[in-house]
Amino acid sequence: MSFTRQALFEEISPAISSEHGKVTIVGVGQVGMACAYSILQQNLANEICLVDVVADKLKGEMMDLQHGLAFTKHCTVKADTDYSITAGSKLCVITAGARQREGETRLSLVQRNVEIFKGIVPKLVQYSPDTLIMVVSNPVDILTYVTWKLSGLPREKVFGSGTNLDSARFRFLLSERLNIAPSSCHGWIIGEHGDSSVAVWSGVNVAGVNLHEIVPIGLEGDTDNWEQEVHRKVIDSAYEIIKLKGYTSWAIGLSVAKIVHGIVGNTRNVYALSTNVKGFHGINDDVFLSLPVVLGSNGLTHIVKQNLSETEISQLQKSAESLLEVQNSLKL
Amino acid sequence: MSFTRQALFEEISPAISSEHGKVTIVGVGQVGMACAYSILQQNLANEICLVDVVADKLKGEMMDLQHGLAFTKHCTVKADTDYSITAGSKLCVITAGARQREGETRLSLVQRNVEIFKGIVPKLVQYSPDTLIMVVSNPVDILTYVTWKLSGLPREKVFGSGTNLDSARFRFLLSERLNIAPSSCHGWIIGEHGDSSVAVWSGVNVAGVNLHEIVPIGLEGDTDNWEQEVHRKVIDSAYEIIKLKGYTSWAIGLSVAKIVHGIVGNTRNVYALSTNVKGFHGINDDVFLSLPVVLGSNGLTHIVKQNLSETEISQLQKSAESLLEVQNSLKL
Amino acid sequence: MSFTRQALFEEISPAISSEHGKVTIVGVGQVGMACAYSILQQNLANEICLVDVVADKLKGEMMDLQHGLAFTKHCTVKADTDYSITAGSKLCVITAGARQREGETRLSLVQRNVEIFKGIVPKLVQYSPDTLIMVVSNPVDILTYVTWKLSGLPREKVFGSGTNLDSARFRFLLSERLNIAPSSCHGWIIGEHGDSSVAVWSGVNVAGVNLHEIVPIGLEGDTDNWEQEVHRKVIDSAYEIIKLKGYTSWAIGLSVAKIVHGIVGNTRNVYALSTNVKGFHGINDDVFLSLPVVLGSNGLTHIVKQNLSETEISQLQKSAESLLEVQNSLKL
Amino acid sequence: MSFTRQALFEEISPAISSEHGKVTIVGVGQVGMACAYSILQQNLANEICLVDVVADKLKGEMMDLQHGLAFTKHCTVKADTDYSITAGSKLCVITAGARQREGETRLSLVQRNVEIFKGIVPKLVQYSPDTLIMVVSNPVDILTYVTWKLSGLPREKVFGSGTNLDSARFRFLLSERLNIAPSSCHGWIIGEHGDSSVAVWSGVNVAGVNLHEIVPIGLEGDTDNWEQEVHRKVIDSAYEIIKLKGYTSWAIGLSVAKIVHGIVGNTRNVYALSTNVKGFHGINDDVFLSLPVVLGSNGLTHIVKQNLSETEISQLQKSAESLLEVQNSLKL
Repeated sequence: MSFTRQALFEEISPAISSEHGKVTIVGVGQVGMACAYSILQQNLANEICLVDVVADKLKGEMMDLQHGLAFTKHCTVKADTDYSITAGSKLCVITAGARQREGETRLSLVQRNVEIFKGIVPKLVQYSPDTLIMVVSNPVDILTYVTWKLSGLPREKVFGSGTNLDSARFRFLLSERLNIAPSSCHGWIIGEHGDSSVAVWSGVNVAGVNLHEIVPIGLEGDTDNWEQEVHRKVIDSAYEIIKLKGYTSWAIGLSVAKIVHGIVGNTRNVYALSTNVKGFHGINDDVFLSLPVVLGSNGLTHIVKQNLSETEISQLQKSAESLLEVQNSLKL
Repeated sequence: MSFTRQALFEEISPAISSEHGKVTIVGVGQVGMACAYSILQQNLANEICLVDVVADKLKGEMMDLQHGLAFTKHCTVKADTDYSITAGSKLCVITAGARQREGETRLSLVQRNVEIFKGIVPKLVQYSPDTLIMVVSNPVDILTYVTWKLSGLPREKVFGSGTNLDSARFRFLLSERLNIAPSSCHGWIIGEHGDSSVAVWSGVNVAGVNLHEIVPIGLEGDTDNWEQEVHRKVIDSAYEIIKLKGYTSWAIGLSVAKIVHGIVGNTRNVYALSTNVKGFHGINDDVFLSLPVVLGSNGLTHIVKQNLSETEISQLQKSAESLLEVQNSLKL
Repeated sequence: MSFTRQALFEEISPAISSEHGKVTIVGVGQVGMACAYSILQQNLANEICLVDVVADKLKGEMMDLQHGLAFTKHCTVKADTDYSITAGSKLCVITAGARQREGETRLSLVQRNVEIFKGIVPKLVQYSPDTLIMVVSNPVDILTYVTWKLSGLPREKVFGSGTNLDSARFRFLLSERLNIAPSSCHGWIIGEHGDSSVAVWSGVNVAGVNLHEIVPIGLEGDTDNWEQEVHRKVIDSAYEIIKLKGYTSWAIGLSVAKIVHGIVGNTRNVYALSTNVKGFHGINDDVFLSLPVVLGSNGLTHIVKQNLSETEISQLQKSAESLLEVQNSLKL
Repeated sequence: MSFTRQALFEEISPAISSEHGKVTIVGVGQVGMACAYSILQQNLANEICLVDVVADKLKGEMMDLQHGLAFTKHCTVKADTDYSITAGSKLCVITAGARQREGETRLSLVQRNVEIFKGIVPKLVQYSPDTLIMVVSNPVDILTYVTWKLSGLPREKVFGSGTNLDSARFRFLLSERLNIAPSSCHGWIIGEHGDSSVAVWSGVNVAGVNLHEIVPIGLEGDTDNWEQEVHRKVIDSAYEIIKLKGYTSWAIGLSVAKIVHGIVGNTRNVYALSTNVKGFHGINDDVFLSLPVVLGSNGLTHIVKQNLSETEISQLQKSAESLLEVQNSLKL
């Protein structure tokens, strides 16, 4: 090789590796790979680093991405079971985790994931002490708390993908019903990712027109039945997709890519992400729930103070209590 | 719903569906979905239509893509086991097909796929008589021939993804060895997709400098060993990835998206695609092999006449003969 | 040439021109060219057609764009003083028009532009009877009315770029003050493009939080002085830029490209565009003002019914009256 | 303002400015602004910094770009006559320069530009000691030499936009004649930007097929007359556009954006850029001419060694001599 290169090129100065925009993805399952594929296609990172414990699968996924590099903008794709390759990451995305066993309690599942995270988080921080960490694995709120504790990082640097995807599903369903673009439908799902999420009906708007000013959207007397037809569907749809295809991957991959774009571009957009909500909406403990936050390249900088109804606040508080109970039972 | 819409909007004229840029994907396995996900992210179609025989999986994949629509540019995603939803497609991409059974002969596998294609191709043409059809399923060259025969479409409208991906893998490996961008490395793999593909070493160039003018690249006396280290690796890598992760998906998804881009944009770029090579390089039968072709929105318009060496021509002819033998044994 | 092509290619089927996505731009001044350059770079059209009366300048601009085609995605760029090249346009963007002469009255300027439009609009419709027409020339509201009358097209097919740019300037200033991304700042400027535009303060929101629920934004007692510091600046800034550099171009080019994207992609996004507002907010005449509208590939399909305050409504009505007065004085 | 922000947000950590991807453009004439507009639209920089001596025009251009930020991905746009705002630039693009006066000799023009560059280059290096500098102003080869001398930067960090645009024009004309995409037409113009540029006919290829192997392209006996119809047109077209519209802007803006993309993305693509060619093709002095070079985020790392014909080499040497003569007459 060196012979050909020598014959073809005269070196003026040495080639260097890209010095920024490195994103690590831990876990190369369906979710991790949908994230990697989206980040690659959208050209959001100069380097994508894959880490997993299954060496074969890991190498196969790396090669499969690499063979597509002739079709994408520039990116370097690396993979290893050893965390040393993650050194200098700007962002680490954790998608690894155990799946629920038949008859297993939720607490048992969480504890098993805690053990897995003990093998991941400290190594990420060791090699990239300034990294941001985004948790995607479920249950995302509790695992984001666990990651925060294990990492020793400040609160703004550790967050979960949370209800960013729930909000997107919500907007898609709104857009279908209103027959306009999802990006012109504004609505937010906050709180716990999953069954007990909260649809903030009071903020749903199109072109600045609050829908609750013209119809009792999401409330009693709503003849269009938005809570059942839209919010309920958001909650049920993840379950339905898992039942139909075995897992979810594409939408979460796009959701994560959107968040990564906000970070690498320092865009300061608002996203619904799982964050430490201590001090918000009457919650006084270190628990993680999704609220609208402003994201920059240094992490989460601001939390938006929403005017929530009493019902909404009490739902958040109830989620916080149940999460706290689980947290207190964990061995960290 | 109509109540809310009525309260929010005054209709001036009815909304319409997009009238062009519809792409159908048959088969929602790993390859089909990587194609769909890439086409969606790169905004290459106004409508993506998924068809498969497994209704559950099909619906799950559709919903998973739909939930990402709030993160992408505009696209409509539909799915059904009934081909009527494919009506008006500009392009149909076939990724469906049987996998090889333990101990099954290649011919037996092909015949099983022929039976599957008999249930696909006529329906595609029935609902979209003007469609282009791209075959991705393997063995791609023979199945492209089968599709051409079953469809009754003219030769320019039916082609296979062929060695477009092999060429991309080739350029990636060149780029790694030369340490320059893949898009600045020009090289072509033609012929049969798979083991007997042909690397056209005489055309490999960087900035217009033919490498074979400065080193005996790919030939005897090549101390950098390009044939073994690069072309051999291209051939082996598909097998290696299948061994490591069970299938290939990401790179073929990006390869297909690139070809789709050429079609919907009528870009007139040159791709290595599987096409009827009757009349080229001394081949006188209707067999399909990959050659560099010019692609437009009406299909393949020109085939590039390469100056091949005698060895290369004889390799192509050998592939043609073996394909012809299989074709003659098929019951169409 | 034919010799080389013959030596290099074997024709399988004839090359065709792209059959859709043609955009015509009338007027190759700074605004028209910023529009063309944005549409080209954002790959929003398969063909861009430039028309102007100054043949030299026209040809120079065409060549300058064409020489950049090796750097962009596929597009054909044409130019002629004869409107026959515009045949089959999906959208025509009118940026042509006279500039105000020293001491000239507004009415005189408008009448001169009416004469110019008489030479443009009928020809556009003659060659592209199904086209949409977007007017960018100023005064945009009155010239959109004129275009509607001259074209004989239905109301949904003729609109003006209106306050889409004013709204963008508004969001940029909001984003600067709040230190978040413009795309997370939702606010609308409606009404007449220019001095008498209306900032709809009641609809300004971030993450669904209406700012007027937490501060008296835009109202009396607003200690942050939003009306003066933001809305006033939006109005003044166009004048200021014209004073500083002689004209505005870049932002209007991006504004127009955004609207074109909505049309060619049939995205059904909401934009503030100048449209016939007869029947809205107590206006009963055929006058054109900007309101939030839903745009698709067939034009404007819905107008959003905003809950405006009495002050806002009376501002709109006042604009309507003054426009009507001008319209009644015009010789069409 | 602080009151609204306080009411809306809770700060978790301070917002920061983007720390990388800053591009400075010196000179806000038609060329400089086309560059800025392209870089903005293609999202190639986190921060664009404009510098010029004409404060009014400068502020107007800045405001005009800023008002478009609601339509683009994230970017900060700044402008000042004081170079301190350029601090920390990764790349500085110089488009400033005097225009030729009636009857002025070329040498006199160059000397006037040298004086202007004395006021620019040292300040750029003072505030951004690690910056790359790309010269776009004409005569580009000599002014790149001047910039290299004035800057004291190593050879790999100072280059001119050179014949990157000539090569693009060349490929566009090839693509028109062959009726295929420009990106599938490979050809290079090297040497001096302008009249004495060299078309490397021996390297022109499509899909690896060297055209000079099938037709005497660019040589005697070429019945398709490529040298006259294509290379000559490339040289003449810049003059023709200047005659028709007064200046060139769009294509050079896209050319510069492409180069910027290579740098910020560290893509290692090959471009034809003006570089110090001492030691190449028998040239033994510090003169700048365009050759194919590999570009990364640290500048130009390799020069491609082309197999040029004797005629081509002698053309390069002649250009080198005439440039050297001018250089020796300059007062630096």
